[in-house]
Amino acid sequence: MILYGFWRSIATMRVRTGLALKGLAADELPVDLLRGDQFEESFRAVNPARAVPALVPVEGAPALFQSMAILEWLEETHPQPPFLPHDAAGRARVRGLALIAAADTHPLSVPRVRSELAQRFGADERAVQNWVQHFIMEGATSLEGHLCREAETGEFCHGNVSGLADICLFSLKAQADMFEVDLTPWPTVRRIAARCAEIEAFASSHPTRQPGAPHRHSVFP
Amino acid sequence: MILYGFWRSIATMRVRTGLALKGLAADELPVDLLRGDQFEESFRAVNPARAVPALVPVEGAPALFQSMAILEWLEETHPQPPFLPHDAAGRARVRGLALIAAADTHPLSVPRVRSELAQRFGADERAVQNWVQHFIMEGATSLEGHLCREAETGEFCHGNVSGLADICLFSLKAQADMFEVDLTPWPTVRRIAARCAEIEAFASSHPTRQPGAPHRHSVFP
Repeated sequence: MILYGFWRSIATMRVRTGLALKGLAADELPVDLLRGDQFEESFRAVNPARAVPALVPVEGAPALFQSMAILEWLEETHPQPPFLPHDAAGRARVRGLALIAAADTHPLSVPRVRSELAQRFGADERAVQNWVQHFIMEGATSLEGHLCREAETGEFCHGNVSGLADICLFSLKAQADMFEVDLTPWPTVRRIAARCAEIEAFASSHPTRQPGAPHRHSVFP
Repeated sequence: MILYGFWRSIATMRVRTGLALKGLAADELPVDLLRGDQFEESFRAVNPARAVPALVPVEGAPALFQSMAILEWLEETHPQPPFLPHDAAGRARVRGLALIAAADTHPLSVPRVRSELAQRFGADERAVQNWVQHFIMEGATSLEGHLCREAETGEFCHGNVSGLADICLFSLKAQADMFEVDLTPWPTVRRIAARCAEIEAFASSHPTRQPGAPHRHSVFP
């Protein structure tokens, strides 16, 4: 499999974790989002949405796109170990938690959004960082609101086995790391993120562990 | 079933369409997002993420949350008629298209984002509308890039039966209607949206058809 990704892409990170949890290997091809590689014609042929990740399952096949759709595909084609519980209500809860991070939080901090803030409103680095921090904190509040009060929460988001919600919660933690948000006010989110970090499939997917990552990087390299 | 929603909520609209396609009825309880009803304690008990939609499947059960998780739950608990094709690659394509609208486009136009633009950057109504229009056009471009060139595209996004991707594409069309984006430059998106509008399950879910909708409304009532 070929995974088009970028070292600091939070959505690529989710697919990386998913592949690792399923015990699958993919060759990662870098698409530099900060340089704008995603807008080149050659990449638009891979993914017309001009975004990573894109996963080519076998040579010549069309690329799968959108991290959450790729993770569902992984679950359907490689059921073990499962990302989702067996009962419909549990699956809805796990998907809902996952989407709080992946759909309600992460899209507000991607390069194209940060760039529009700068261009349209003259937002400087600090103002952009504050914007991103605000929405990461909102996402953490929403997750904590569920996790701290619901009986299904265990060692991980849903019981004592990691899954789709943990992949996304841990990607929110990576966002928080990059944009310097301290998760102390959200103790259950923080605890589960720390538990995930003990597992190599999670830890190895973190942006700072990727080959393209600088030893020290600012939020806006 | 009880659906907590709001007449102009694009995410509520998706669940409304899904319920109607499955032939299910839910009583809709309004949560006025513009007045801030979602932040009240009574609603936080229903959905700690302070967002609609939230679907209570049976009295006393916890609310399902996040429109895409609710739609997957509907598909699993009420398989007929299906929202998703049977093959894993097709399911990944349909979910990917759906998420371009639901995760990459829609979250950038919700009230909490518009409100932050106004508060942080002094964006006026016109600037906020331009921001939303930009991301709707980006979403339409990404969808069109897939739909216009892929053999799976038919009368609807994936073949000749409507499904999850069409629910989300039609919700992007409703966003475009509300924020005054003309979809003419994206002919396949426009054609499929028009085809959906011929079906009552889609048409009846549109914000302008809801009891709470004013006869004439501005984008910022």
